[in-house]
Amino acid sequence: MEEKTAFELLKQKKYPELRAMLATMEPADIVLLLEEADEEDLPRYYRILPKELAYETFAEMDADMQENLIRSFSDNELSEVLEEMFLDDTVDMIEEMPAALVKRILRIAKPEMRKSINELLNYPKDSAGSIMTIEYVDLKKTMRVSEAFDRIRKTALDKETVYTCYVTDAGKHLIGIVTAKDLLLAPPEAIISDIMDEDVIYVSTHEDKEEVAKQINKYGFLAMPVVDAEKRLVGIVTVDDAIDVMQEETDEDFQLMAAVTPSDDSYFKTSVLSHARHRIVWLLILMLSATFTGIIITHYEAAMSALLVSFIPMLMDTGGNCGSQSSVLIIRGMAVDEIKMKDFGRVLFKEIRIALVVGITLACANALRIYLMYEFIYKNSELYAGFDVFRVMIVVGLTIVGACLLAKTLGCCLPMLAKRCKLDPAVMASPMITTIVDACTVFLYFNVAIWILKI
Amino acid sequence: MEEKTAFELLKQKKYPELRAMLATMEPADIVLLLEEADEEDLPRYYRILPKELAYETFAEMDADMQENLIRSFSDNELSEVLEEMFLDDTVDMIEEMPAALVKRILRIAKPEMRKSINELLNYPKDSAGSIMTIEYVDLKKTMRVSEAFDRIRKTALDKETVYTCYVTDAGKHLIGIVTAKDLLLAPPEAIISDIMDEDVIYVSTHEDKEEVAKQINKYGFLAMPVVDAEKRLVGIVTVDDAIDVMQEETDEDFQLMAAVTPSDDSYFKTSVLSHARHRIVWLLILMLSATFTGIIITHYEAAMSALLVSFIPMLMDTGGNCGSQSSVLIIRGMAVDEIKMKDFGRVLFKEIRIALVVGITLACANALRIYLMYEFIYKNSELYAGFDVFRVMIVVGLTIVGACLLAKTLGCCLPMLAKRCKLDPAVMASPMITTIVDACTVFLYFNVAIWILKI
Repeated sequence: MEEKTAFELLKQKKYPELRAMLATMEPADIVLLLEEADEEDLPRYYRILPKELAYETFAEMDADMQENLIRSFSDNELSEVLEEMFLDDTVDMIEEMPAALVKRILRIAKPEMRKSINELLNYPKDSAGSIMTIEYVDLKKTMRVSEAFDRIRKTALDKETVYTCYVTDAGKHLIGIVTAKDLLLAPPEAIISDIMDEDVIYVSTHEDKEEVAKQINKYGFLAMPVVDAEKRLVGIVTVDDAIDVMQEETDEDFQLMAAVTPSDDSYFKTSVLSHARHRIVWLLILMLSATFTGIIITHYEAAMSALLVSFIPMLMDTGGNCGSQSSVLIIRGMAVDEIKMKDFGRVLFKEIRIALVVGITLACANALRIYLMYEFIYKNSELYAGFDVFRVMIVVGLTIVGACLLAKTLGCCLPMLAKRCKLDPAVMASPMITTIVDACTVFLYFNVAIWILKI
Repeated sequence: MEEKTAFELLKQKKYPELRAMLATMEPADIVLLLEEADEEDLPRYYRILPKELAYETFAEMDADMQENLIRSFSDNELSEVLEEMFLDDTVDMIEEMPAALVKRILRIAKPEMRKSINELLNYPKDSAGSIMTIEYVDLKKTMRVSEAFDRIRKTALDKETVYTCYVTDAGKHLIGIVTAKDLLLAPPEAIISDIMDEDVIYVSTHEDKEEVAKQINKYGFLAMPVVDAEKRLVGIVTVDDAIDVMQEETDEDFQLMAAVTPSDDSYFKTSVLSHARHRIVWLLILMLSATFTGIIITHYEAAMSALLVSFIPMLMDTGGNCGSQSSVLIIRGMAVDEIKMKDFGRVLFKEIRIALVVGITLACANALRIYLMYEFIYKNSELYAGFDVFRVMIVVGLTIVGACLLAKTLGCCLPMLAKRCKLDPAVMASPMITTIVDACTVFLYFNVAIWILKI
């Protein structure tokens, strides 16, 4: 509703009304609105925003929109925006910009800021250092609560969060934590060292960012302090960045599970050719692997009949689905730290028992289905010529139980093996498992058929 | 390291040392430790915790552990814990307890708390009301900043967050928001109405909890206010609860995508029979659907040869994988609100172009593979007796392109159709798409084969 009206004002170029309306909106909603506007009009709309709101909105934009705006900015405007943005957002932005713009940004940034940006850019991708901000409130342990409040008041505007304050010693080592709530509840004359919590949980700059996000979630923190190799406090990771990391990791798992090469770009911003490239690698690998199943089939030419071949798709699908179920549950369980490497035996034993229950049930259901179709459709057709329907039921049933056992065993072993080999367990998700299980199922099927049907 | 030592102290029954060590630990870590202890020892370990920490740890436990402890609690102990827990945690706990314990909890709760619990229990499952807490800080617009601080100081201990305060009028209607940061930056004599933000974003009690979580993430809020039908403030949803909701929804999508009936229970806490039950429904549906592919095969008995049959697994897998890629990307895109229903045409057009690129590439790669295998392995074998290798390449290639087109079209249409029908789009993930695409691919394959090979 609100968006609709703003969009109309924007189209009708009623700028004063638009300005008044935008002033009441959240930055995230303004960005959504600007995405609907023509690209060349973007700078004009940006400039009618009240200044503070403009800076906040800029920080919320995606890299394309930011790039578009920066190109239209005067050096002065760019310098203002850089001053107001949090450093972690600036670094995120710089990582997406073309080299020429990065140079311009670094040239315009003040020397101290430039130094900090360069330091942050140097942390390895996916590390805590790469997502942290250096704008936190630090206190000294000898301060009184009233002095702490003075310090927060003086610096709050430039800090990403003021609700957790970090107590450091002369060497910048992290020695304690005080929340704003602790400060509010303490008498003004209390000394920080008396009210701070010395059992500080922290991470190092090189910690994997996914691990940091998990810990923030586990402890319910609003921010996690990050220290360097000498245990000096160098930054914090805030809960909103942790949520972003968790969503990116989930995106990546989804993509891997769908046999797509992971990419950070959004669906619509990725071109057709890039989409095709991301999808084709795995398809090729899986297509060529599926050739093995074909080779196995050609080996059993003698056993080839329309009847026996007709069960292959059902057997392959059932095996594949059984394997997917186990692998996806195990992969997700490992992603949320519920299943650990030491649980391997427990998981395997559990999956084998599940496979037996599932396999036997499916085999019985399928036997019934075969019998009914035989009785009512195929009794006098050529399809069953030379076959005993009961033996066929047994062949298919045994294959289903075997395929379930195999699929669920591989479905739990392969993801854990991948993790052991320091690979992302998600590469061992449905498509990979399906391809492997297919070949094994067809092999098993023909052997059971030859054995029981004596072909 | 720390956990290990604590666990040893626990086993050696060195309680004073253990108590000292636990006192320095975070509640989430203590719960992890207690999970390793024998169930009957749990109450003893719980009682050596310092009181405050004990309450916080209790709130972090899963329902089984809480139930175990509550059974060992005296009425006094239970009453103390209830007093200290946040109401949303209490309600979450009650929802998991057996009826007898729920009765005991409600009997021991003070009348006012009992009333609130009952109200919260009445909100529909998955609504904002069901996950909100009613413990927030409310201010009046006529208050001065110093009075606001007094109020926060007086009530902070019982509030889930004090960092966002809500300004309400005499009728409890939400009229503004003030953050603790705003309060800290304002002079003590300022009036709340002058510094509050009147453009409040809020949700209603009946809003879907997933939507609430998305909005908290979108706006970067620490808490989202919840209002009733008369726009009166009734509670808040905090960011940590929003993260939990997001994780639950992701878990559910993963399970649906793996053809598992979703369940909230953890992998290890679910029994073998429950696991089997959750997995068997979809397996049965998919197994019986795969029968169609079998029926199609039996219809083309005339075209049956080891050579043609040997390509079926590869064609089925490729079609299935192509469909999975599209459906999973679309499902995820819809889950994070990047793809909306109005984008249907755009998505379809994009997927068709991707399918053409991918299909033609795969067809060429496969033609090369067939040619190489023919030249070096099958040239003089019986497999190709009566077949022209180039025509086979064309049949398989055309089928691959057709299967890709079909798979990617269905892969984007079906999840969006499911959403249109108010179903979870994730039910249209890989397994379902695979089964449908399989049948179509086999049908297409035999028809192309009959047409080009003139069988």
